[in-house]
Amino acid sequence: MKPYSEMSREELLSLKAELDKQFEDVKGKGLKLDMSRGKPTPAQLDMTMGIMDVLNSESDMNTENGMDTRNYGLMDGIPEVKRLMGDMMGGVPSENVIVYGNASLSIMYDTVSRAVTHGVLGSTPWCKLEHVKFLCPAPGYDRHFAITELFGIEMITIPMTSDGPDMDLVEKYVSEDSAVKGIWCVPKYSNPQGISYSDETVRRFAALKPAAEDFRIYWDNAYAVHHLYDDEQDEILEILSECEKAGNPDLVYEFVSTSKVSFSGAGISAFASSKANVEEAKKFMTIQTIGHDKVNQLRHARYFKDMNGLMEHMKKHAAIMRPKFEAVLQVLDRELGGLGIGQWTRPRGGYFISYDALEGCAKKIVAKCKEAGVVLTGAGATFPYGIDPKDSNIRIAPTYPTSEEMAAATDLFVLCVKLVSVEKLLEA
Amino acid sequence: MKPYSEMSREELLSLKAELDKQFEDVKGKGLKLDMSRGKPTPAQLDMTMGIMDVLNSESDMNTENGMDTRNYGLMDGIPEVKRLMGDMMGGVPSENVIVYGNASLSIMYDTVSRAVTHGVLGSTPWCKLEHVKFLCPAPGYDRHFAITELFGIEMITIPMTSDGPDMDLVEKYVSEDSAVKGIWCVPKYSNPQGISYSDETVRRFAALKPAAEDFRIYWDNAYAVHHLYDDEQDEILEILSECEKAGNPDLVYEFVSTSKVSFSGAGISAFASSKANVEEAKKFMTIQTIGHDKVNQLRHARYFKDMNGLMEHMKKHAAIMRPKFEAVLQVLDRELGGLGIGQWTRPRGGYFISYDALEGCAKKIVAKCKEAGVVLTGAGATFPYGIDPKDSNIRIAPTYPTSEEMAAATDLFVLCVKLVSVEKLLEA
Repeated sequence: MKPYSEMSREELLSLKAELDKQFEDVKGKGLKLDMSRGKPTPAQLDMTMGIMDVLNSESDMNTENGMDTRNYGLMDGIPEVKRLMGDMMGGVPSENVIVYGNASLSIMYDTVSRAVTHGVLGSTPWCKLEHVKFLCPAPGYDRHFAITELFGIEMITIPMTSDGPDMDLVEKYVSEDSAVKGIWCVPKYSNPQGISYSDETVRRFAALKPAAEDFRIYWDNAYAVHHLYDDEQDEILEILSECEKAGNPDLVYEFVSTSKVSFSGAGISAFASSKANVEEAKKFMTIQTIGHDKVNQLRHARYFKDMNGLMEHMKKHAAIMRPKFEAVLQVLDRELGGLGIGQWTRPRGGYFISYDALEGCAKKIVAKCKEAGVVLTGAGATFPYGIDPKDSNIRIAPTYPTSEEMAAATDLFVLCVKLVSVEKLLEA
Repeated sequence: MKPYSEMSREELLSLKAELDKQFEDVKGKGLKLDMSRGKPTPAQLDMTMGIMDVLNSESDMNTENGMDTRNYGLMDGIPEVKRLMGDMMGGVPSENVIVYGNASLSIMYDTVSRAVTHGVLGSTPWCKLEHVKFLCPAPGYDRHFAITELFGIEMITIPMTSDGPDMDLVEKYVSEDSAVKGIWCVPKYSNPQGISYSDETVRRFAALKPAAEDFRIYWDNAYAVHHLYDDEQDEILEILSECEKAGNPDLVYEFVSTSKVSFSGAGISAFASSKANVEEAKKFMTIQTIGHDKVNQLRHARYFKDMNGLMEHMKKHAAIMRPKFEAVLQVLDRELGGLGIGQWTRPRGGYFISYDALEGCAKKIVAKCKEAGVVLTGAGATFPYGIDPKDSNIRIAPTYPTSEEMAAATDLFVLCVKLVSVEKLLEA
């Protein structure tokens, strides 16, 4: 088919009539599918059930250094899991790692909240400042933006490139504005585009010269080991050691979790940073908690054993997820290729495919899909304040439904894209 | 023996010589015991190991309402655990309960932190106020005081009576000073005295007329089911319904956990409050976390089944703990009875025995014990800012060592009490 933009008004009108009819047909099917969140599918969870057997009433419940995981103590995590989580982050030494509970989002919230109430390494608490700003590469992760919005932090959108955030802009803001206290990053298989930061991008991050002493990079390495393919895999530079090399050891807070490795509802998470930042976090932990669930930490350590075990496990996840991503991409390629009504990403890992529709069309496409029973992430969610200035980006989360459901849902999606695009062109 | 205060200087000097000799003998034994924290002993943890078998790789991982505990969702807890935790709190309806992670201390920290950054139900965030004060019944729990101190909240000591905090003082402060935003309470088997609040005390709490709209009672029901005896048990009124009856539904935040029911390192915790307070907490949770560990919640629900199961389990804890409490009390009675150099509590539950030495002696007694190898909770820890104005209160935590170790440690303790008391009387 030829690009929509080259069609005559008559062609568009006749196309619209045909698409309207198709839409009514699909609507009649009564689809009920959810592609809104990056959620593992039951088959992935079933595949991990072996973890439920590694500990039983006969098990030795002590850590490798002889501490009882059932009792109080070892607030910063058991040694075998500190090592495993450090390895997941690309080889961060254990002493730079703190293990937390089941959600890295909580660590991020907590880290921001602590900066608001107590500052960062002795700097002024943000609640005492007039202006606090965060840079938000977008499209990005809605829950990051929700945290900064909750604390009244002004969010500045930074465009994404295929190498990561626009670093010229990042450097400019960070070095010139002392109100800029942080930047949200998903450096590997980014949410939602699946972009991995280039080595140059990581090095430029590590070499930032912030105007604010309490500026930190909030490095959410959520998809650190979440490859879709055995052969084509993205790797990023390990940021902590890059920061150290650049003479900026305290510049980054890194977050990671097993939410999409073991169980989303019952995994473990970790924080990594410089000695000074880790010590500060621990100082607060002694007041904030009696420590996190060490039995679940032990369960994870015994199940995965080491990075080899963990990576073997991730291959099984990939085997379940890959066909779904490919089902979506196949339909997008076949149905939308060459029409000039959008662009999409082909991630090699992570949990999302990102679709950029014609300007002003994202909200309508999402609404249209919903009308016929397919729930997508709300349009705009991938931008600060939920406002996509171009109303163009749509996040597709292909993991939860089955491949067949994904194909059906994507058929509907492309139909809605076509329909809304035709309508836009007719209005022009 | 006659009371020390009736002894002549010569008698005291000769007693001191004898005690000094005894102390050197004990020191030679090289004791190494820890009575500093309320920590379950390994036998208690072993006794709970059945909980490790209730879930395995063949288990149905769904909640009673068909939700998969392994995946995202059900942020406020699974229904069977909301019910169980509500029952633990004396019959709080599930809709008033939110289940959290493994530490109720984290919920308390979080609740205070949220009030600091965002206020309470729309009131001014505490970080914007000049003065914020908390009432602190003392002796009390050091970790409560650590939270309020961390946030720069001024702490006002409220003396404890055998019925709970001095309610005349509480009512006066709460009704007259709008800077008073909260009070820390351990209403049942209080830490460290083992006092349970009388019905009148609870009713007076529920009927408070705070000057501050954002005043809340921080009701840490830490020992809700932690009886030492089958027959003699304390019960307290259920505070939420009392508050509602008194027309003060939003007045209380209640906290509870299974840290001393299942595992200290891997239990579950809960928060209970009015509809409005619970809704506010949930609103923040949607930003703060993806939810807590539901698999561990399910494990607890399947293991304890209901309150009957849980109370049967608590009897087993009591059977292990009771002899230790009795060993301590026996030594105290036998060695210190009638000497007029201190008073102690005889709790019917909880984790502590509280000893009030002669004024100005607590620090020296604790130091003396440490010199001979027995670690007690630091003197002063049971008061705000770690300062006991009378330097008198000592918290004894008898649970972790064995009964034999407890007897040995208590022998040393009474020796140190005698020695320091004699020295004080000689100085007078």
